[in-house]
Amino acid sequence: MRSFKNDYSEGAAPEILAALVDTNGEQTVGYTEGDPHTERARALIREACGQPDAAVEFCVGGTSANLICVAGMLRDFEGVVCTPDAHINTHETGAVGACGRTVLPTHDGDGFLSVEEAERVWGFQTSCGRHMTRPTLVYITDSTEFGGVWDRRRFDEVCDWAEGHGCKVYVDGARLGAALESPANDLSLGHMASRADAFSIGGTKNGMLFGEAVVIRDPDLRRDFPYLQKMRGGLMAKGRLLGVQFEAAFEDGLYWRLARHADECALALRDGLMAAGYEPYLRSDTNQQFFTVDAGLARALEDACGCEIFLTLPDGRQVVRFVCSWATETADVAELVAFCSEMPR
Amino acid sequence: MRSFKNDYSEGAAPEILAALVDTNGEQTVGYTEGDPHTERARALIREACGQPDAAVEFCVGGTSANLICVAGMLRDFEGVVCTPDAHINTHETGAVGACGRTVLPTHDGDGFLSVEEAERVWGFQTSCGRHMTRPTLVYITDSTEFGGVWDRRRFDEVCDWAEGHGCKVYVDGARLGAALESPANDLSLGHMASRADAFSIGGTKNGMLFGEAVVIRDPDLRRDFPYLQKMRGGLMAKGRLLGVQFEAAFEDGLYWRLARHADECALALRDGLMAAGYEPYLRSDTNQQFFTVDAGLARALEDACGCEIFLTLPDGRQVVRFVCSWATETADVAELVAFCSEMPR
Amino acid sequence: MRSFKNDYSEGAAPEILAALVDTNGEQTVGYTEGDPHTERARALIREACGQPDAAVEFCVGGTSANLICVAGMLRDFEGVVCTPDAHINTHETGAVGACGRTVLPTHDGDGFLSVEEAERVWGFQTSCGRHMTRPTLVYITDSTEFGGVWDRRRFDEVCDWAEGHGCKVYVDGARLGAALESPANDLSLGHMASRADAFSIGGTKNGMLFGEAVVIRDPDLRRDFPYLQKMRGGLMAKGRLLGVQFEAAFEDGLYWRLARHADECALALRDGLMAAGYEPYLRSDTNQQFFTVDAGLARALEDACGCEIFLTLPDGRQVVRFVCSWATETADVAELVAFCSEMPR
Amino acid sequence: MRSFKNDYSEGAAPEILAALVDTNGEQTVGYTEGDPHTERARALIREACGQPDAAVEFCVGGTSANLICVAGMLRDFEGVVCTPDAHINTHETGAVGACGRTVLPTHDGDGFLSVEEAERVWGFQTSCGRHMTRPTLVYITDSTEFGGVWDRRRFDEVCDWAEGHGCKVYVDGARLGAALESPANDLSLGHMASRADAFSIGGTKNGMLFGEAVVIRDPDLRRDFPYLQKMRGGLMAKGRLLGVQFEAAFEDGLYWRLARHADECALALRDGLMAAGYEPYLRSDTNQQFFTVDAGLARALEDACGCEIFLTLPDGRQVVRFVCSWATETADVAELVAFCSEMPR
Repeated sequence: MRSFKNDYSEGAAPEILAALVDTNGEQTVGYTEGDPHTERARALIREACGQPDAAVEFCVGGTSANLICVAGMLRDFEGVVCTPDAHINTHETGAVGACGRTVLPTHDGDGFLSVEEAERVWGFQTSCGRHMTRPTLVYITDSTEFGGVWDRRRFDEVCDWAEGHGCKVYVDGARLGAALESPANDLSLGHMASRADAFSIGGTKNGMLFGEAVVIRDPDLRRDFPYLQKMRGGLMAKGRLLGVQFEAAFEDGLYWRLARHADECALALRDGLMAAGYEPYLRSDTNQQFFTVDAGLARALEDACGCEIFLTLPDGRQVVRFVCSWATETADVAELVAFCSEMPR
Repeated sequence: MRSFKNDYSEGAAPEILAALVDTNGEQTVGYTEGDPHTERARALIREACGQPDAAVEFCVGGTSANLICVAGMLRDFEGVVCTPDAHINTHETGAVGACGRTVLPTHDGDGFLSVEEAERVWGFQTSCGRHMTRPTLVYITDSTEFGGVWDRRRFDEVCDWAEGHGCKVYVDGARLGAALESPANDLSLGHMASRADAFSIGGTKNGMLFGEAVVIRDPDLRRDFPYLQKMRGGLMAKGRLLGVQFEAAFEDGLYWRLARHADECALALRDGLMAAGYEPYLRSDTNQQFFTVDAGLARALEDACGCEIFLTLPDGRQVVRFVCSWATETADVAELVAFCSEMPR
Repeated sequence: MRSFKNDYSEGAAPEILAALVDTNGEQTVGYTEGDPHTERARALIREACGQPDAAVEFCVGGTSANLICVAGMLRDFEGVVCTPDAHINTHETGAVGACGRTVLPTHDGDGFLSVEEAERVWGFQTSCGRHMTRPTLVYITDSTEFGGVWDRRRFDEVCDWAEGHGCKVYVDGARLGAALESPANDLSLGHMASRADAFSIGGTKNGMLFGEAVVIRDPDLRRDFPYLQKMRGGLMAKGRLLGVQFEAAFEDGLYWRLARHADECALALRDGLMAAGYEPYLRSDTNQQFFTVDAGLARALEDACGCEIFLTLPDGRQVVRFVCSWATETADVAELVAFCSEMPR
Repeated sequence: MRSFKNDYSEGAAPEILAALVDTNGEQTVGYTEGDPHTERARALIREACGQPDAAVEFCVGGTSANLICVAGMLRDFEGVVCTPDAHINTHETGAVGACGRTVLPTHDGDGFLSVEEAERVWGFQTSCGRHMTRPTLVYITDSTEFGGVWDRRRFDEVCDWAEGHGCKVYVDGARLGAALESPANDLSLGHMASRADAFSIGGTKNGMLFGEAVVIRDPDLRRDFPYLQKMRGGLMAKGRLLGVQFEAAFEDGLYWRLARHADECALALRDGLMAAGYEPYLRSDTNQQFFTVDAGLARALEDACGCEIFLTLPDGRQVVRFVCSWATETADVAELVAFCSEMPR
């Protein structure tokens, strides 16, 4: 059976790969500094965002993009507020902290940063002046680590709160395509771009060989990013590679089609499993689906389709994660649903 | 009325000050590198700890001692487990994080690190290999931020747990005197020194003008400390000053007498306030006492005796902290108890 | 005319690209953690090095590889000795320094670290104990930034010196292929691997799309590298991409053939220009060639073939750099030599 | 014989010590945050500098002051230009680098930063855009590490150069008193304060028990300093101690009288040794004097008066340093001159 382990288990979508092959013989300047593909990709992304003055930069991967942007928007003694499950808090080996900045997790349990928790953390951290890390940045993820989609109301609430508290906003868009193409979404790329000080547009998990774009409105980060990117080891010598891929992805909407396909597969999977009596952990309308199962079943599913055992609940049951990608096929979903339906529970 | 704000509001105990004055004219080598007072202080502390081979170093202050030791015992990608109220987690402006290391707070609410919470954090942080900060150090505070005293059983439990999980142990002893001289204490300096990989012996809050001693058994930190201390700006040019003070404090038990006096004042205050119907927040048997009062009373007490409003509870009531020191007098306590008894509640 | 600007101006060698295309549909685990291509590449490189127990890791780029390894082999207060032109000293925006470690350049002017200068820097840096950054690592580049080749005698001298002074040795092999395939080379990969504590094998500048391998004998770095790589943002999600490329490069000697071709083109260019009366700046036997010309000619050459103006001499003349790669053709070299020969000087 | 090893070998001047003793019983708020002595010291220093709006902060020591200010004025990828002998480059164990910032030494050999060398370093470091550490700060020391005094012309030249190149200026004034009280000085405190973005006023080496003041005009550093100081472990709990000392030093010119005395002793020593045929290494008009002697004589002098062997020249001769302080007496100088005069050379 096809693996549902994650969305970075396979190569690039055929159109992306073809673009890399077609341009392989071209000689270009390096470092994303002016080759025609990178410049064209920049223009396409600026246009898609409705931000003609934003900087668009290209990174080798998500952790690199996050640490450059998050640490780059913080002075030494400042911190970033995020949910406890945030990638920068749990799965990047302290990368932001390794740059000397502090991650300030809330107690939110569902992947969405709440204004109440942001306010609580902010209130605590500013209660003792210079003796405490000062929160000046908010980090959210769309779609969230649990597959959730930020709707416009919720997003605006957080942005309003941030604005009112002297905080900037960064959106980790490692799975931004999956979020914006979800049927549950009502947030436009343009609106997000108009309020976030910076955000990433993930390629690795959406059909590219590798690479993330970063859109930057914040003037300080715009100025500093080129230096920080080189200094943090995140600048690609053959910058063209990133430009070529994002050019192909944004020239005619391929980026969004790939994401929509992954979402559709995942929603079919979700509906199939629910129909078969499986219990969703948290509602997800994107390409990651989470179900709560007994430990024995979790292991069986892991063996069968590579799904990850995401967490273990206090009662011993486990949450498994199924991930669909651009490469998942309808038949793969049907096969998995059939398999799951037949498993004893 | 005398202020009960904190134990670093005043100068040095007379004996300490006299030692500084008496030695003021001596010419010595700098940097705690071999002047006779520093060497004598080292010998006295080693003897008091029963650790003839431990390194004893002297620092200008507690944050400096903590950041040098904690960051110094961690490799870049490692983290330190502590309670959420730990000084390194809340009141040092991210000093450990600024050295690129990560603080990993538990959910313990009473100032004591529990084995259960340490295990939970450790389990989570090691669940995803290289993708997560690796916990390799445990940080505890004796007495705790809430005035609690680590008894031997509890201390050994944490040390056993740490040993079993490849973690070192650091004890922040900013108020170690208050802990070890408390009537609630059954932990000897010798036993603590035999199990902690490093710990501090606070002078600033126990009658010295300033300064903390650090006792180090950990061989790596022993070797690195001199360099780290200079590099982090924590090495005093006139190192003699620290040596002279700790020599005076440990020559004939002055250090312990000063701490015992502060404890006795605070326990008399506690008993007086409880007799007057005040409600303790958490039990403290040391020189800091915490009481829960209405917000109005909190402000009145703050105005009268400088006590700090330590935290606000969900029900709106506030926890105030009274701190006694070497300089508090019995009459000061009596005056405060009388004042509090007369306050309307 | 084909550009001679650098060896990372173009895509991948056809065999490398084909391997990526051929494996594009495979589903593999991520992060270089066990996919068959990465494991095969590791085995091939270990075998080529004669180091069955070495760790072989794969990085996205050279700066990332350098900062992870160099900072990873240094404790906080330690430094790395290198030549002033070393990439880590000049062209990585202080990447090693951004990890809190110190770069200690010598005064060597020709790209080769001399034992005399290493000794001088070491002597100075250890003359004042804890007050100075302690040198514990030596960084060399083969081929050097000026195209030079480390011969075995010179290499062993530096390794002997390092061994005698408690220093480890790291070789930046961004252009290792060009060095080892040069006619001037008498140093085997096996010998280098037996003495360097860690070294990189550059792919980006030798026909791969991107990527560097790192070979690690040093036990501490072996243990820490996986964490450091993730923490510094240098771990690729689709780790397979790196494995596939290095597998293709090392399966049948392609890596070395590509390098030899680039060297041969460059030596033909060198001989052609010298025959035409051009003056070499420093002798290079590898794929980078440096010539001293008048400023006007420098600009004309830059316009014609993209060569970089590398530095300006005190007398106003300039050093231009021509770089050949796997993609350079004999006819390109002939065209450039003809062009240069006709230029008025 | 009295030791001439350094100016931090002894305690505090009697007036400073008396001020500490007199105020020992006062209860004050901590952390230099508003106690009357600290506020008075701030006002006195602002007045002396003619900078009513400058921030005046107090640090425990020179390395701490330097690292907070220098790193605090640099973004992550920026560097500070200084002479190779600068304290931050050689004798602070890489403290600035440990904050992730880069020190960019020139080749100046006499302790004075020259505009020519600043320009050269700046030109090199900005020749390759984002690939190189960007110089944005100039660090000078007055008096220099070799005892030299910055005259107004030279100082203005560097400040003009900095202004023209987008660089800020920091003056390390660890021995500022010795500089400004030197007969060779024509630079007023007010003029320096009007041009430096920040500078320190050293207490440790000029008769205080310990402590340095920092005067800050730079608006960014003013805003950040309180947080940075706590975060770097450089904030003293009993902040009063620093306030009391600087209040006593600046109330009636004591600071300057102490420095002038040290200078006068040193100049008498210099003249005496020159009359006896000793050869000065570099001209110094302040409290440090440097003489070139044979190695045997260097050792004999070191044994006799504790002077440091500062460096060894290529010809094997050595430079010894004699330092006078507030505590040096005329008779001490006479004794040393007599001793030196009798030594066989």
